[in-house]
Amino acid sequence: MAGNRAVAYKGPGKVEVIDTDYPTFELKDGPGVNPANVGRKVPHGAILKTVTTNICGSDQHMVRGRTTAPKDLVLGHEITGEVVEVGPDVEFVKVGDIVSVPFNIACGRCRNCKERKTGICLNVNPDRPGSAYGYVDMGGWVGGQAEYVLVPYADWNLLVFPDRDQALEKIMDLTMLSDIFPTGFHGAVTAGVGVGSTVYVAGAGPVGLAAATGALLLGAAVVIVGDMNADRLKQAASFGCETVDLTKGGPAEQIEQILGEPLVDCGIDAVGFEAKGHGSGAKEAPATVLNSLMDITAAGGALGIPGLYVTGDPGGIDEAAQKGSLSLSLGTGWAKSLSFTTGQCPVMKYNRGLMMAILHDRVQIGKNVNATAIGLDDAPRGYAEFDAGAATKYVLNPNGYVKN
Amino acid sequence: MAGNRAVAYKGPGKVEVIDTDYPTFELKDGPGVNPANVGRKVPHGAILKTVTTNICGSDQHMVRGRTTAPKDLVLGHEITGEVVEVGPDVEFVKVGDIVSVPFNIACGRCRNCKERKTGICLNVNPDRPGSAYGYVDMGGWVGGQAEYVLVPYADWNLLVFPDRDQALEKIMDLTMLSDIFPTGFHGAVTAGVGVGSTVYVAGAGPVGLAAATGALLLGAAVVIVGDMNADRLKQAASFGCETVDLTKGGPAEQIEQILGEPLVDCGIDAVGFEAKGHGSGAKEAPATVLNSLMDITAAGGALGIPGLYVTGDPGGIDEAAQKGSLSLSLGTGWAKSLSFTTGQCPVMKYNRGLMMAILHDRVQIGKNVNATAIGLDDAPRGYAEFDAGAATKYVLNPNGYVKN
Amino acid sequence: MAGNRAVAYKGPGKVEVIDTDYPTFELKDGPGVNPANVGRKVPHGAILKTVTTNICGSDQHMVRGRTTAPKDLVLGHEITGEVVEVGPDVEFVKVGDIVSVPFNIACGRCRNCKERKTGICLNVNPDRPGSAYGYVDMGGWVGGQAEYVLVPYADWNLLVFPDRDQALEKIMDLTMLSDIFPTGFHGAVTAGVGVGSTVYVAGAGPVGLAAATGALLLGAAVVIVGDMNADRLKQAASFGCETVDLTKGGPAEQIEQILGEPLVDCGIDAVGFEAKGHGSGAKEAPATVLNSLMDITAAGGALGIPGLYVTGDPGGIDEAAQKGSLSLSLGTGWAKSLSFTTGQCPVMKYNRGLMMAILHDRVQIGKNVNATAIGLDDAPRGYAEFDAGAATKYVLNPNGYVKN
Amino acid sequence: MAGNRAVAYKGPGKVEVIDTDYPTFELKDGPGVNPANVGRKVPHGAILKTVTTNICGSDQHMVRGRTTAPKDLVLGHEITGEVVEVGPDVEFVKVGDIVSVPFNIACGRCRNCKERKTGICLNVNPDRPGSAYGYVDMGGWVGGQAEYVLVPYADWNLLVFPDRDQALEKIMDLTMLSDIFPTGFHGAVTAGVGVGSTVYVAGAGPVGLAAATGALLLGAAVVIVGDMNADRLKQAASFGCETVDLTKGGPAEQIEQILGEPLVDCGIDAVGFEAKGHGSGAKEAPATVLNSLMDITAAGGALGIPGLYVTGDPGGIDEAAQKGSLSLSLGTGWAKSLSFTTGQCPVMKYNRGLMMAILHDRVQIGKNVNATAIGLDDAPRGYAEFDAGAATKYVLNPNGYVKN
Repeated sequence: MAGNRAVAYKGPGKVEVIDTDYPTFELKDGPGVNPANVGRKVPHGAILKTVTTNICGSDQHMVRGRTTAPKDLVLGHEITGEVVEVGPDVEFVKVGDIVSVPFNIACGRCRNCKERKTGICLNVNPDRPGSAYGYVDMGGWVGGQAEYVLVPYADWNLLVFPDRDQALEKIMDLTMLSDIFPTGFHGAVTAGVGVGSTVYVAGAGPVGLAAATGALLLGAAVVIVGDMNADRLKQAASFGCETVDLTKGGPAEQIEQILGEPLVDCGIDAVGFEAKGHGSGAKEAPATVLNSLMDITAAGGALGIPGLYVTGDPGGIDEAAQKGSLSLSLGTGWAKSLSFTTGQCPVMKYNRGLMMAILHDRVQIGKNVNATAIGLDDAPRGYAEFDAGAATKYVLNPNGYVKN
Repeated sequence: MAGNRAVAYKGPGKVEVIDTDYPTFELKDGPGVNPANVGRKVPHGAILKTVTTNICGSDQHMVRGRTTAPKDLVLGHEITGEVVEVGPDVEFVKVGDIVSVPFNIACGRCRNCKERKTGICLNVNPDRPGSAYGYVDMGGWVGGQAEYVLVPYADWNLLVFPDRDQALEKIMDLTMLSDIFPTGFHGAVTAGVGVGSTVYVAGAGPVGLAAATGALLLGAAVVIVGDMNADRLKQAASFGCETVDLTKGGPAEQIEQILGEPLVDCGIDAVGFEAKGHGSGAKEAPATVLNSLMDITAAGGALGIPGLYVTGDPGGIDEAAQKGSLSLSLGTGWAKSLSFTTGQCPVMKYNRGLMMAILHDRVQIGKNVNATAIGLDDAPRGYAEFDAGAATKYVLNPNGYVKN
Repeated sequence: MAGNRAVAYKGPGKVEVIDTDYPTFELKDGPGVNPANVGRKVPHGAILKTVTTNICGSDQHMVRGRTTAPKDLVLGHEITGEVVEVGPDVEFVKVGDIVSVPFNIACGRCRNCKERKTGICLNVNPDRPGSAYGYVDMGGWVGGQAEYVLVPYADWNLLVFPDRDQALEKIMDLTMLSDIFPTGFHGAVTAGVGVGSTVYVAGAGPVGLAAATGALLLGAAVVIVGDMNADRLKQAASFGCETVDLTKGGPAEQIEQILGEPLVDCGIDAVGFEAKGHGSGAKEAPATVLNSLMDITAAGGALGIPGLYVTGDPGGIDEAAQKGSLSLSLGTGWAKSLSFTTGQCPVMKYNRGLMMAILHDRVQIGKNVNATAIGLDDAPRGYAEFDAGAATKYVLNPNGYVKN
Repeated sequence: MAGNRAVAYKGPGKVEVIDTDYPTFELKDGPGVNPANVGRKVPHGAILKTVTTNICGSDQHMVRGRTTAPKDLVLGHEITGEVVEVGPDVEFVKVGDIVSVPFNIACGRCRNCKERKTGICLNVNPDRPGSAYGYVDMGGWVGGQAEYVLVPYADWNLLVFPDRDQALEKIMDLTMLSDIFPTGFHGAVTAGVGVGSTVYVAGAGPVGLAAATGALLLGAAVVIVGDMNADRLKQAASFGCETVDLTKGGPAEQIEQILGEPLVDCGIDAVGFEAKGHGSGAKEAPATVLNSLMDITAAGGALGIPGLYVTGDPGGIDEAAQKGSLSLSLGTGWAKSLSFTTGQCPVMKYNRGLMMAILHDRVQIGKNVNATAIGLDDAPRGYAEFDAGAATKYVLNPNGYVKN
């Protein structure tokens, strides 16, 4: 039987490619596997040969040592693959299908899944609603930055691409359907973006760029992206966004220069809890983004918050931050009748429509986020460069499907 | 005081430019004015000098003699203008503003207006909910294919463009905000068009092209437009639509060639009651479009029906048609759980967002519908050419604002 | 192995209790089973011992001989049961659970199920989207008016009641969750019923009474029910509805007496294609209900259409009716900007919330529809009395769970 | 000309009935009037003779000295009246009409009003979007705890009751339409309450009781109300709510006793920034309610936040509170994918439907909040008793319309 090479967390600042076991239709014990999930049978699962698997900003929270992730945890929740085996309960997904895997694992049988809330499935994580592959405290499902990966509840979870050749041709776009494109799009949708909206996206990392792409696809009139990283701002500008350079201070003044008023209809937080203050040399200040968005979002607007906020952050800047408390000017938001939507994106709500937009050439998400394929062995370099601020979305290519 | 030259209906197949009175802040008796509206005071009104005013397909129903429109009715409900006078109750709209006039007249004070249902305002038409300028049985508000026009409830109805110069520069796009762009867009919205949808639009006249434009703006993956007129289909193809030539038969087979299945997610009827059957030499058959849309819309889909259906059509092909009855295969729709939305577009729900999309260069509606400016005196020619099937949206330019 | 006594269609006007096979985890050949479904494996299924199973108005279409239902088809799609066996793929439903079965069979794995459109599942009926137990042309899944029944995709389809004793105590209410309560409720929801609405329900059969109950639960101010059957109107009045006696003519005048105007906000068609005209001695006239609803629904309103319309009705009154065509005054609806929603209710969208309302004593659906338990052997009498117009919802009690 | 007796703020803890001017169709200078609003003409206004005007919890923020309200500010934003004069621009409201006044003043002519966001009208308050009668920093419109009051934009703002006698008969219910019934209902709607929901309402003051009433009207299965005031909890229990006594600690454990789990679907904050911690003798702790609601709202739920949060609170317990900053455990909410809706209720979105529910005896809001009529001169006593925790909603009766 084949082995399985995979990217693992080895301690703060360190990832390595290791040899692990080829998946079986059972969740075995291992680093980060919830004891209540050990031995769980997965007859409804499919084993995928990985076509692409991307490095995500939320992986960096673990790699930076900001979580309790254990050593040897196999990383990776952004997965596209070819089905190579299916369990006995799989009826519709077929061997040979090229499929996108939503990063949230969902059972398709609980109340929340039936209500399309697949980001908070009740049956996959013994600790709490919601799960993901290769992520600390998310149940222990093995990550997909590997040659092979097991996907449970395959008929429910997998999005099958209609044509193999077309899928491989557009793989650098389609690979974004597993997480960041739906996640950014969800940020835009929950921020109320519609035809003619003005939008501010805080953060020009991959999720911010995906949110901006999503906002444009939804018909936004103007999309403004703010960051401190000049390369990432350049990336945003490359596909029609306006930009705000936060090293010069908060966004209000620059937004006013663009729009004639320091206000937008819709605000998107694509940064999350590791936010920094504004201005050159700003330090970590976890409430900055949300307070700033309340300032610059017009009365009656909405904030979409795909950026991650955590319940505990051992590396937080002070005691409040360490237990996940933020000092929010909620009165500002209340006076403006703002609404706020948080949480993991329920990928399955959006991935099919976004796939259709990609397949019919209506959107170029791969180009917009500067998707760049690298080999599995280059993963450590990808993590390092991404953490250093490269305006690049790294796509691992463990089995050579991506031709350069 | 100035006079007012205007386009009037003179009998079946005949329109002429006539001299009429300059408007005052009162609705005076005249052709088509509802007796209960005669003498109505309009202190909340504004008098506009017409910037542009378009010929609409629904005007053609009158001109073809398919209605009870009286001789000398001044036509025109697609109006953009410059405010030259305001009544004493107007507080926010200012003289000099360049404004778009929603074709539905609404009071802004009744239950329906408060619920954003401005297409069925309860206070402007003594006969029934809903009204329009220059249209038979719609209350008698004087049409705007003229040098000047009165707009009641100006603070409520008028959409003020933010900048005069910018407005005049983009006038061939902005002129579509008074009717067809929102109307087509409403068709798309009520057909359930969203990111990734597949859409079929029946009819490549201006409303059909606007619906197709709207569907693309909403993120549709594929928009297919069907018609029998080759020029109009060419127009649709010019901005990225697929096309179906209905002289070759019904749309199912051609849709299947495009999509791989004879089904779309969303169906839009941009034809209405003067529909013809399919195939070369087809005759009038008022239920054709709706029955065909029920066939080719996938289960769970929706039909947006901006195309006009009337309660009585003296020129109808048979007794049923003359009283507005259609023979519909509702069982087909029921088996597929389809939904149907009819009626005038509530323009005010959409015009501001669409204006923003135009002003920020996100959509080229004028180009998409082949907007062509002509002089007021050329209106009769415009009506005739449009009726003959020209793939052109005629924009009257009564006061020379449009520079060619 | 146990046998299985069941109610079968034996020809026009005739049902009988017959002996059939105890279910297995495979769909075997039999009357009405689609050839493409014969031999289908059902490892994801559960076998239920029937607690209750109701006679439905849509069963009557078959029994009256208005369909192509074959002799010996086992009837019954309104099923509540106790789980006695589960297939190997069932993970969460347990033997001993008391469960409600949505009448629409759904796979939980196709695009439509993932979008909560379980009434038009793509994987259960080889002929078209959508399926049901014991119904002609719906795939051939065996009906549940029997001692035992097989439910496929059990984890997805079944609603588990939280407590066995409580469930059996409220069984005459909970038994309505399989079909008529969600179906009537869906009619109310799609008719736009909300807090303060005025509502007209055409038809006081069980679905009409359920729609009225649903409308009241949604906060309607006034619910008016129209029928020609005095007993059924009395039943509607018993829980707070106003009534309209259609033997006296159309509903407009009587609605005006109740509301002061001949208009309601929301119209519900709980009759369908076997509609009769209004007035004493009225004959079958399939478009009556829809045309009447367009008349009495206010501009801006909506029509919910849970009543069944078919694609073919061999027993229809004329050629048009036989092929499912209706002569609809669509112009009336268009002038009023009405919307229309048709199709099977997607039961899973509503059954959990309605169950909660029942369990917490917020609604008495069993009492409102006059639920009456009878033995399995009394089914033929139940069919006959129901067809004769009894104001009764017959609940079969094949295994003695219901104690009188 | 008549004078006008009115309730005025006289300093912390002190209100008095004073003599003021009878209103005219102009906003004159006076305590709290924004300079930019002084001299504003109101030809679109109506003068009301007050039928009822209620004391509101948000008035108490001013009276307790927690705001910068000036001495002699006339209080009162919950107003029902009889129209005694109309300005020249009023077309539909008539002298003699009995009307409800939404507490938010709105122009009916700005973008937000056109979008039904009347709580943040752009044209009535020179300082910021949104306004109210008799409230500090809200533009300076004179309060209605008086014999007479001016209502601007009368055709837009006023809800006319259909029948005078019926209105006066149900006045103790209808008087709640100006604020607390829509406000509580909005809390329920934005918390996602629907048929079958489980709901927790923090706070059993009048808004909390109105929210509970609204939740029941929306079909909630269980409504649980928490407070530390035994009388107010008794009031909640009187109309079918479950109760949680917060003097015994946080709500989770008591909710678990009621529901079997320490979670509800929907959370409503009817307390706001003057929140106290839980447990006997708890002190002010402004983030308590929101943090507690995040704990006890189930994943996928929503929080409706009608309780007021301010941008500055000079009387706050610490520096953060004084500038309106709250220490929120947003990570908890994010992990559960919660959403949050803040702000003033847009009363006009709901008041007509709620009126219909009252007029047709579907809800008894007056009884539920223990509405009690007192004379204008008794207002100081009403303020004091309400502040001391009386389980009473005080309704002032300045002109004797309410017969006891």
